[in-house]
Amino acid sequence: MDTGNHGGLTPLSEVGEFGLINKIRETAPASGANTIKAIGDDAAVLDSKGKKTVISTDCLVEGIHFDISYVPLRHLGYKSVVVNLSDIFAMNAKPAHILVSMAVSSRYTLEAIDELYEGIYAACTHYGVDMVGGDTSSAPQGLMISITAVGYAEESELVYRSGAMANDIVCVTGDLGAAYAGLQLLEREKRIFMENASVQPDLTGNDYILERQLKPEARADMVETFARLGIKPTAMIDVSDGLASEINHICKESDCGARIFDERIPVDPQAAIFLEEMKINPTLAALNGGEDYELLFTLKPSDYEKIKDVKGISFLGYITDRSYGVKLETRDGIQHDLESKGWNAFGA
Amino acid sequence: MDTGNHGGLTPLSEVGEFGLINKIRETAPASGANTIKAIGDDAAVLDSKGKKTVISTDCLVEGIHFDISYVPLRHLGYKSVVVNLSDIFAMNAKPAHILVSMAVSSRYTLEAIDELYEGIYAACTHYGVDMVGGDTSSAPQGLMISITAVGYAEESELVYRSGAMANDIVCVTGDLGAAYAGLQLLEREKRIFMENASVQPDLTGNDYILERQLKPEARADMVETFARLGIKPTAMIDVSDGLASEINHICKESDCGARIFDERIPVDPQAAIFLEEMKINPTLAALNGGEDYELLFTLKPSDYEKIKDVKGISFLGYITDRSYGVKLETRDGIQHDLESKGWNAFGA
Repeated sequence: MDTGNHGGLTPLSEVGEFGLINKIRETAPASGANTIKAIGDDAAVLDSKGKKTVISTDCLVEGIHFDISYVPLRHLGYKSVVVNLSDIFAMNAKPAHILVSMAVSSRYTLEAIDELYEGIYAACTHYGVDMVGGDTSSAPQGLMISITAVGYAEESELVYRSGAMANDIVCVTGDLGAAYAGLQLLEREKRIFMENASVQPDLTGNDYILERQLKPEARADMVETFARLGIKPTAMIDVSDGLASEINHICKESDCGARIFDERIPVDPQAAIFLEEMKINPTLAALNGGEDYELLFTLKPSDYEKIKDVKGISFLGYITDRSYGVKLETRDGIQHDLESKGWNAFGA
Repeated sequence: MDTGNHGGLTPLSEVGEFGLINKIRETAPASGANTIKAIGDDAAVLDSKGKKTVISTDCLVEGIHFDISYVPLRHLGYKSVVVNLSDIFAMNAKPAHILVSMAVSSRYTLEAIDELYEGIYAACTHYGVDMVGGDTSSAPQGLMISITAVGYAEESELVYRSGAMANDIVCVTGDLGAAYAGLQLLEREKRIFMENASVQPDLTGNDYILERQLKPEARADMVETFARLGIKPTAMIDVSDGLASEINHICKESDCGARIFDERIPVDPQAAIFLEEMKINPTLAALNGGEDYELLFTLKPSDYEKIKDVKGISFLGYITDRSYGVKLETRDGIQHDLESKGWNAFGA
């Protein structure tokens, strides 16, 4: 998409900050039950209705977290909401509000920002969340989106990273590594295009991995599932930086170890085929790729019976004492230290 | 301050994202009564204790909101918290938590980021606020700080922009235009320095305007004062974009007009002298300068007696019907339309 050429489009400087805020305010979807006052005052006013408030923030930076040359702005808006809601679901809470701050260079037009907000609103509608505030500013360069998500839960429902105990079962929803595969595909096609602009990107047959990268969803359904089954995980985290990083977070906060079986790690077949083609080990993509936005959680062994028939949940292994360490066991019985190699935004 | 030369200092890439988060977590001040869980999980958990939650977000972008060549990072950290807390006070609420997102280029060292967080923590301690979460990321360029502030109030205590009525008295705390004067001074000295590096900046005798620009404070005291006097303003807003912009916001949201008397606008004598020297009309600096972080509020006429002897509050005029418009009356009796010329971040 062309954000550089203003021909026929509206430069942001023409509408100004208040103009943009008014436009955002007018087009924002209607408010839900926990919102007393949304956009239009010094601050939004929220009603927790006796529950505890859960709050998280994440920022996405152009050139670091996304590449505007192949990410449609509508998808970017959608994804930037999803990655934040995922943190709220990881607490076993339900999101209700977001605040959106944006710093935008003059390279972007009003139409481009509209597209971004369309994606943000689509996510708000899909997840039943209100946009209650935000800030828009210019930036000397690029685009930065910072979103804060707010949700609610009863104190007794909340699940922390710190509650895992030895013998708990380690579970993960969905499959891992596909978002990373999608990113590799997009970057490969970009390289080919940069070398020869007459070659059109070949994305056929890779819909799933592209969708996992460009338009991920957060696991809202799991909070419902846990409630329906009468299960409360002992610990939970969302898989944003890769399985290796997340299991290490749980083990560190819970002061325990974990034994994970390589063969149990769920990888989608299409992702596996593409990764093999790219000479990337699918297990490594699952361990270190990130951006899956699945939920990694631990369960008391007595809860296993209740959840074992739920589709799309994989049992990766179990929690051990701290002294065991955090280990990945391959099919040949060899145990490897599972170091946290989560994606390092500073490139170390 | 030199952020470019890493000699002897620690590049951010050396500690990585988790290293930085751990360091921030270790050095963050202790938590207050409304914080159940601060940094270290997918989200923070807050307890509103039956009150309503007030939430606001603001972002500061290098090259737009601040110039690192003359703003000490410690002050920048402090100010970025203050501008957010000011929005919470403007709702007549008390802030309790902040979340801090930061995108930082590799030009900054760990020591520079430490300095920034020192300022953030100093503000947290001063205002009794917990840092409960955040996100750190690299950026291709510059520095961006996005802060979300959360506070609490009883629903009956909340003051919106929309409650002003005809005949209400328009009041403002402190003085206006000094932060803008401070900015002009810093920019003048920077220009002189750029032209001839042997000329040292001359900032003597201008402590007040410099402090107003570099280390502003938010009006926490007013929330206490209103409670003590048994007064609830009918409308309130903080002065971040200048008096003209803020009175127009109140009038728009309250569907009313206002008659403001030029001679009543409080300008500090030091600021006035400096502004005159720079050939800037002090009234214009107060109207359009911004960054004062004072509170502009309206009161029922019957509350005037209760507040008239409180020091540091100026009575600017009164609220009128919508049909009157928003007007500034100069000493000669001439009425000028008071257009909202709030600072436009997009440079229109």
